[in-house]
Amino acid sequence: MGEIKHLCMVKFKEDAVVDDILQGMSKLVSEMDMVKSFEWGKDVSNQDMLTQGFTHVFSLAFASSEDLTSYMSHERHLEFAGTFMAAIDKVVVVDFPVVVAKPSPAA
Amino acid sequence: MGEIKHLCMVKFKEDAVVDDILQGMSKLVSEMDMVKSFEWGKDVSNQDMLTQGFTHVFSLAFASSEDLTSYMSHERHLEFAGTFMAAIDKVVVVDFPVVVAKPSPAA
Repeated sequence: MGEIKHLCMVKFKEDAVVDDILQGMSKLVSEMDMVKSFEWGKDVSNQDMLTQGFTHVFSLAFASSEDLTSYMSHERHLEFAGTFMAAIDKVVVVDFPVVVAKPSPAA
Repeated sequence: MGEIKHLCMVKFKEDAVVDDILQGMSKLVSEMDMVKSFEWGKDVSNQDMLTQGFTHVFSLAFASSEDLTSYMSHERHLEFAGTFMAAIDKVVVVDFPVVVAKPSPAA
């Protein structure tokens, strides 16, 4: 059984305090044991035709779909999701079992 | 210097032969030494309001932005990109230096 990832691609509102949100998310994730790992990043391509205005990616990995469900329905996640959703202009969220087609040499 | 990821989120056309494209992509990536690792996945949430119709995620990792540039401009990638773009209904592509906020226990 492989990992399942919860991936959010986001465009923040112009007045959003992105640093506060990043901090809140890192804190939340560090406290939620069912989150196996968490990485994020900010687009550096700046190619609007490709990014469609999306600027940030957040990727949470879980050991099982049960862990993902438990995270999604957790009170603290729901609380944070409210703050998060209020700060964004648009978002796409997908959940997918990870297929490793070319493993990292370090793995 | 951390990894840089090239992430594509895709909705395929209804008549696209997705298996052929996945096979083509895996073959391409396996032959391109500058691609450090490659993973992909298919959404299992089926929540249209969140996925916005996007169904697949493709994530390529590179050791440096130079490697990403060298991949993007490579003849074989450009050739494949033509086939890929012809098969998709919509796509978002972002490139981002990876910030590991919570490392995987296995790492």
